[in-house]
Amino acid sequence: MTDFDKTKQAFHLPQGVTYLDGNSLGPMPKAAKARVANMMADEWSEMLITGWNKAGWYVQPRKVGDRIARLIGAGPGQVVMGDTLSIKVFQAVSAARAMRPQRRVILSDSGNFPSDLYVAEGLARAVDAELRVVAPEEVAGAIDDTVAVLMITEVDYRTGRRHDMKALTQTAHTAGALTVWDLAHSAGAVDVDLLGCDADFAVGCTYKYLNGGPGAPAFIWTHPRHADAAQPILQGWMGHRAPFAFDQSYQPAPGVERMRVGTPPVIALTALDAALDVWDDVSMPDLRARSIELTQAFIAGVEEHCPDLVLNSPRDPAKRGSQVSFRHPQGYAVMQALIAQGVIGDFRAPDVLRFGFAPLYVDLDDVAHAVQIMAMILKDKSWDREEFHERASVT
Amino acid sequence: MTDFDKTKQAFHLPQGVTYLDGNSLGPMPKAAKARVANMMADEWSEMLITGWNKAGWYVQPRKVGDRIARLIGAGPGQVVMGDTLSIKVFQAVSAARAMRPQRRVILSDSGNFPSDLYVAEGLARAVDAELRVVAPEEVAGAIDDTVAVLMITEVDYRTGRRHDMKALTQTAHTAGALTVWDLAHSAGAVDVDLLGCDADFAVGCTYKYLNGGPGAPAFIWTHPRHADAAQPILQGWMGHRAPFAFDQSYQPAPGVERMRVGTPPVIALTALDAALDVWDDVSMPDLRARSIELTQAFIAGVEEHCPDLVLNSPRDPAKRGSQVSFRHPQGYAVMQALIAQGVIGDFRAPDVLRFGFAPLYVDLDDVAHAVQIMAMILKDKSWDREEFHERASVT
Repeated sequence: MTDFDKTKQAFHLPQGVTYLDGNSLGPMPKAAKARVANMMADEWSEMLITGWNKAGWYVQPRKVGDRIARLIGAGPGQVVMGDTLSIKVFQAVSAARAMRPQRRVILSDSGNFPSDLYVAEGLARAVDAELRVVAPEEVAGAIDDTVAVLMITEVDYRTGRRHDMKALTQTAHTAGALTVWDLAHSAGAVDVDLLGCDADFAVGCTYKYLNGGPGAPAFIWTHPRHADAAQPILQGWMGHRAPFAFDQSYQPAPGVERMRVGTPPVIALTALDAALDVWDDVSMPDLRARSIELTQAFIAGVEEHCPDLVLNSPRDPAKRGSQVSFRHPQGYAVMQALIAQGVIGDFRAPDVLRFGFAPLYVDLDDVAHAVQIMAMILKDKSWDREEFHERASVT
Repeated sequence: MTDFDKTKQAFHLPQGVTYLDGNSLGPMPKAAKARVANMMADEWSEMLITGWNKAGWYVQPRKVGDRIARLIGAGPGQVVMGDTLSIKVFQAVSAARAMRPQRRVILSDSGNFPSDLYVAEGLARAVDAELRVVAPEEVAGAIDDTVAVLMITEVDYRTGRRHDMKALTQTAHTAGALTVWDLAHSAGAVDVDLLGCDADFAVGCTYKYLNGGPGAPAFIWTHPRHADAAQPILQGWMGHRAPFAFDQSYQPAPGVERMRVGTPPVIALTALDAALDVWDDVSMPDLRARSIELTQAFIAGVEEHCPDLVLNSPRDPAKRGSQVSFRHPQGYAVMQALIAQGVIGDFRAPDVLRFGFAPLYVDLDDVAHAVQIMAMILKDKSWDREEFHERASVT
């Protein structure tokens, strides 16, 4: 059995804070600070340029990738790190489209994260493809023989609704399409099984449930059957078969390493590597069971004690990731009042209160406390204060 | 007058090392380690998700960009940070090409860094353009009315040969083409004057002469006349006009911020920001004068004391960046012998010994010492030992 008390101890969580926003940015693993400081002092400072070999900086993107592979149902040598999720979406979708050159449609749904849609739109304009966006429940019916690529985020960033990866992949394959799965809200949150679902490409970020730090590097997975055939548009020297031959023309590396582009972000990968230590003794079925326990308890508690809130997530845990959202007409002010009381979730327009339940450091006491504070805020209407209605500008 | 003794004191340089490889990876500024540790402890740990606003993480890419702008002859609000240099090359070249849709040719030269050529080749294949590569001395003559984009690295990564940015830009403009300048070996090394040269786009990395750390984020500059017109293929949410409106379709942000793509790498940008502090009191004309003094002294010393070496860089400092290379039939072994004596340069096949002279921390004593060690190694043939001939494998 996974010891979740032990994993919770591995994180720095500020005094008086119940953190239910790990679906946006995970907290800092205690080991990360020293690991980064040591890398800077012992590797960058002392090894200088020789760190690329001596400290293994070159191979870090695939070594860290191997650690993530286990968490998403992939095998060793199938995942590589780098760039940001948006870049990795571009690589996966462009590679998949190029493998179905006779088909124009990139199919996605309106529950996808906007950046994925923007990326696909930019790609489509450049390569004469078409981005088609349907409602989440219409995806399966919209897969036809015009579709080159099905680009889906498994877990909806607002509602937590979880697509059926296996069924949609099968439908796509039957129609001759390839699939690109965005695991932003899945990796480290649910029991992803890429090989078991026979997916084609997958991408994800590491600053949410994987706790790699703000802007931590992204990952990309290619099914082994495509890994030596996928041709990325973004051809960078680190994805070359022999980067240090300095050839004038590009020869892709074997396997997923061709998805590397530029020089890897060593400091950021070091922080992420420290964060992945926490996962070493975590079983993914245990994680999923714990996640369901937490989200079920939260829904039950809120529905019992906060009748003003309307559930905005699927009630069936099989159709949900590790987050729950509720609606309230004054959602923004309610969230500000919660945050003022140390319960951190976030708000998505127009009226959604969003809460993430990262099993590594959220426990049933946190759930009970969050419900209690929310009930109090709603009961005495303490959200109805001017300060909670003022919106901070982000730019 | 810039105090280069003071700037040298700002870096951690290992005992017994003369570091002439800052053109590959700059050393660690002493302040960087504490700055990153503090960011992790005070911002990530304590502010969690609120760090995006409270600690200014969102605006960091343009704030850091403003600091770099001064070093490359650009104005505030014109430079933004993120991703890697290869990605930024893709963005700049694709945006420039889209502004000359009737023209198919991306013109570059064989002295360009291979990754730039790979990126252009991948883009060309996707958007029906053509990458044309000529010898460095043939660039000016090859600019004709078929050329959409002139993509040039100002300073050659092997020879240090510096292109005439102003003249080539003028030739390109006369022919109706746009220019993309890669400043990888220029930014922080020479007195770049983007606005004065009337360039169109520029990109660069920050782990060389700017000392941001291994894999530090890249930068991109867009001339203000293009900044609101350039349409990037890589459309990410951070380049959207209103990222937190979560619109389904992309509306580019005004100005160069549309060149942002995904979530910014906060830890890495923090290290870079600390590294840029060292530049605060540095005058770029002083930097250039110092660079010329160092490279001239090195060439004179080597030619006097190491007659076996053949200069592989332009003799005229006006045609050279801040690095010098020499050829030797046993170049690899000679470089290994130098490194064993604490003089760190690097080797590029087939026979090039490459030395960078970063004015912030290399001084005339370092130059004299490097010449002395090299003379000794060549005189007593101490490079001819088996250990110096064995090549480490990078993968």
